[in-house]
Amino acid sequence: MIDAILKHIAADQSAAVERLKALLAIPSVSTDPAYTKDMKCAADWVAGALLEAGLHATVYPTKGHPVVLAQSSRDAAPTGAPRVLFYGHYDVQPPDPLDLWKTPPFEPTVRDGKIYARGAVDDKGQVVAFIEALRAWKKIGGKLPVHVTALIEGEEECGSSHLHDFLITHQKELAAHDFVLISDTTLWNRETPAITYGLRGLQYFDIQLHNSNRDLHSGVYGGTLANPATILTQVLGRLFDEQGRVTIPGFYDDVLPVTDAERQQWATLGFDEKEFLGAIGVATPWGEAGYGTLERRWTRPSCDVNGLYGGYGGAGAKTVIPSFAGAKVSFRLAPNQNSKKIAAAFDRWLRSHDVHGCRWQINDLHGAEPVIAPTDSPWVAAAQRAFTRTAGRKAVLVREGATIPVVIDFKRVLGLDSLLIGFGLEDDCIHSPNEKFDLDCFALGCRTHAALLAELADIRSK
Amino acid sequence: MIDAILKHIAADQSAAVERLKALLAIPSVSTDPAYTKDMKCAADWVAGALLEAGLHATVYPTKGHPVVLAQSSRDAAPTGAPRVLFYGHYDVQPPDPLDLWKTPPFEPTVRDGKIYARGAVDDKGQVVAFIEALRAWKKIGGKLPVHVTALIEGEEECGSSHLHDFLITHQKELAAHDFVLISDTTLWNRETPAITYGLRGLQYFDIQLHNSNRDLHSGVYGGTLANPATILTQVLGRLFDEQGRVTIPGFYDDVLPVTDAERQQWATLGFDEKEFLGAIGVATPWGEAGYGTLERRWTRPSCDVNGLYGGYGGAGAKTVIPSFAGAKVSFRLAPNQNSKKIAAAFDRWLRSHDVHGCRWQINDLHGAEPVIAPTDSPWVAAAQRAFTRTAGRKAVLVREGATIPVVIDFKRVLGLDSLLIGFGLEDDCIHSPNEKFDLDCFALGCRTHAALLAELADIRSK
Repeated sequence: MIDAILKHIAADQSAAVERLKALLAIPSVSTDPAYTKDMKCAADWVAGALLEAGLHATVYPTKGHPVVLAQSSRDAAPTGAPRVLFYGHYDVQPPDPLDLWKTPPFEPTVRDGKIYARGAVDDKGQVVAFIEALRAWKKIGGKLPVHVTALIEGEEECGSSHLHDFLITHQKELAAHDFVLISDTTLWNRETPAITYGLRGLQYFDIQLHNSNRDLHSGVYGGTLANPATILTQVLGRLFDEQGRVTIPGFYDDVLPVTDAERQQWATLGFDEKEFLGAIGVATPWGEAGYGTLERRWTRPSCDVNGLYGGYGGAGAKTVIPSFAGAKVSFRLAPNQNSKKIAAAFDRWLRSHDVHGCRWQINDLHGAEPVIAPTDSPWVAAAQRAFTRTAGRKAVLVREGATIPVVIDFKRVLGLDSLLIGFGLEDDCIHSPNEKFDLDCFALGCRTHAALLAELADIRSK
Repeated sequence: MIDAILKHIAADQSAAVERLKALLAIPSVSTDPAYTKDMKCAADWVAGALLEAGLHATVYPTKGHPVVLAQSSRDAAPTGAPRVLFYGHYDVQPPDPLDLWKTPPFEPTVRDGKIYARGAVDDKGQVVAFIEALRAWKKIGGKLPVHVTALIEGEEECGSSHLHDFLITHQKELAAHDFVLISDTTLWNRETPAITYGLRGLQYFDIQLHNSNRDLHSGVYGGTLANPATILTQVLGRLFDEQGRVTIPGFYDDVLPVTDAERQQWATLGFDEKEFLGAIGVATPWGEAGYGTLERRWTRPSCDVNGLYGGYGGAGAKTVIPSFAGAKVSFRLAPNQNSKKIAAAFDRWLRSHDVHGCRWQINDLHGAEPVIAPTDSPWVAAAQRAFTRTAGRKAVLVREGATIPVVIDFKRVLGLDSLLIGFGLEDDCIHSPNEKFDLDCFALGCRTHAALLAELADIRSK
């Protein structure tokens, strides 16, 4: 059966690209109210496509943009078959700056085997790849081998503000799945697929240090009182020791050590530190001693000053002693760290310094937990078999340094682990002009999702 | 003679206040092109008043606002009498915020013995006090006891941009004076006059630390490269040691030590550190160990971070690793320090730190030298005799923590020391709403300038 389905997908590929073009032509920019009608239009398009693929689809209004929820019929798959919750998003980033696009962002254009448009790979192309897999299963197989629910939201690019409430409202029906399948990441490289099983968390602060009740003349007052900008640099300047380690007591206590198996796997990846940093104009790596760049990104917590402000920052000179100075300071959390614990430790650490009479204003802006999913699950094994069939090799198991908040919500609200398999490439220019999706990668996505559904059929639902 | 003159000044005081009101009513805001006509009008008013007071006055156009230059006739004073160059300014700060003024800034109003208006004390009231002294000398004495030149500029509140060129152009005639008399400072307090003989200099930098060629996602890159904002705090955090001393090698080498005589004099001033800092909401003094607040302000060099910028400084969170971060850093220089030497030392010091591959962009924005004038000059002695006559006591000899660039220009371009005697009070709200000049202080100014001219007559020109 799966061979026939994959054959059909290959034969139907140019029609699939035309379908993708139709969705890409809708300017579903979620952050800009000017596109509200287009958002509805894109949600309707996705619901229609899921309907055509054999699911019952509903467009749910939210306080923000609509959520599309579609489910296979209760009798569509065998009893006891696994229940897969597919997650994706139909909204896109704003296309600015427009003048840097070679062809208009919402006039999808194929050049040299790649489709160029805003949202080509993030995430419309990857959503459509999944829908194409469903469509092929319906057309050739007649019905699906597993139970499928598709949850396609319209606010991923602006913080998924209303998704949490949606998950709470639909908690019971959504929790009744075995895992979440997400297709919003990349291949390791053109030849090598990847499964992402670890994500870092985040703890973000805005901190301010205050002293005088107004900005002061540095001639009259300079040298007589603690300048909050100066003192702020003294405190933040102590965040790292000589070994590049964060000095906050207890900071590393809970960090999950990397296993030998992980190290061995990553050693085979051929990760090129020079190329990785060279692409952003950085010649010298710097970080926690004892770790390589890849481990630092994926497995170690980090701390960054994301912004500095206070006093005069314009052109030229202004001889002011600012009444306050501030910084955005955030931490990327490694699996098993807890954002609340890190937040409390940072707060204590800040207050432990002598700030010579200045006063702190510390705002905990938000925290998100790190995630690590089991790699010995039947879903990972099924994905590996699917990739072996479609890509000719197993996926490498990788982590990601960034945070994907929905993954945490799925775990916390629904109790579900996520399986992240994506078909993008590093050079796809997501969030930038000339975003593209290689048609080979799109085809691999269609085929792999179809093959994964087949592989899942052999597994019993929990 | 001087008794008769002082008597006349007292009798003529209400007319003098009316004259001051006429000048204060002209909105001569130098920084705002909307007031260009008013600037010309104020310059003409000043020239007219100096003419009435017996001087030959000329309004010189510049590339900015006009300069008023007025001189007594060659035969107006005895041969060999001293030649005094009086400096003041007729321009004022913008009056914003207007809604905080109890009466409109350009409708001068007398309340409770004080005249309220923008420029009341800074510097129109002090300029008019000097002109009133000239006027009284002319009316009662018939002629002046010394040679007087008045140089009244219109760009003091916006950087005196064209004064330097004016001094160069008129170098020969202006250098032919014995000293510069400036009346743009304050009394020590209502009862105690002050002569300011020392000013700190300034060295101002804009520094930036750069790394990646664009802002980065802190999830993808956090922990793998030097974040310029973080590293900038590490470097600036080392500017001071535990003793509150600047750590730049050689920083204090040239600082002129305070003399015992100065310390003894200042001990009598009753300077109230608590009140000084309390007025700006600061409970805890902080600075170089071993010095009190007054000495830190007046005699010790200082270093301030005047501003921090880079990365994200808006509301909420943005998880960016900035491609660069910057700071405004300036030094107040104590007498005998040299701005170029300090600039070079700071540049060397910055570059001596390990910044883990980041790159500096260091902009030396400007330097101004500190000034210390002799206190044993005949001009200071004459001022002391004048104050004894008009205020009933000698002036205290004070310094100022700020920089007055024209004083440096007078020394460098003309070779002249300045005598700074002023009649303002700390609570005059200069540069703020409801600026005022106590009429008693204005009267003291008129009388003291008249008495000073009398005292100077006994001295032979250099």
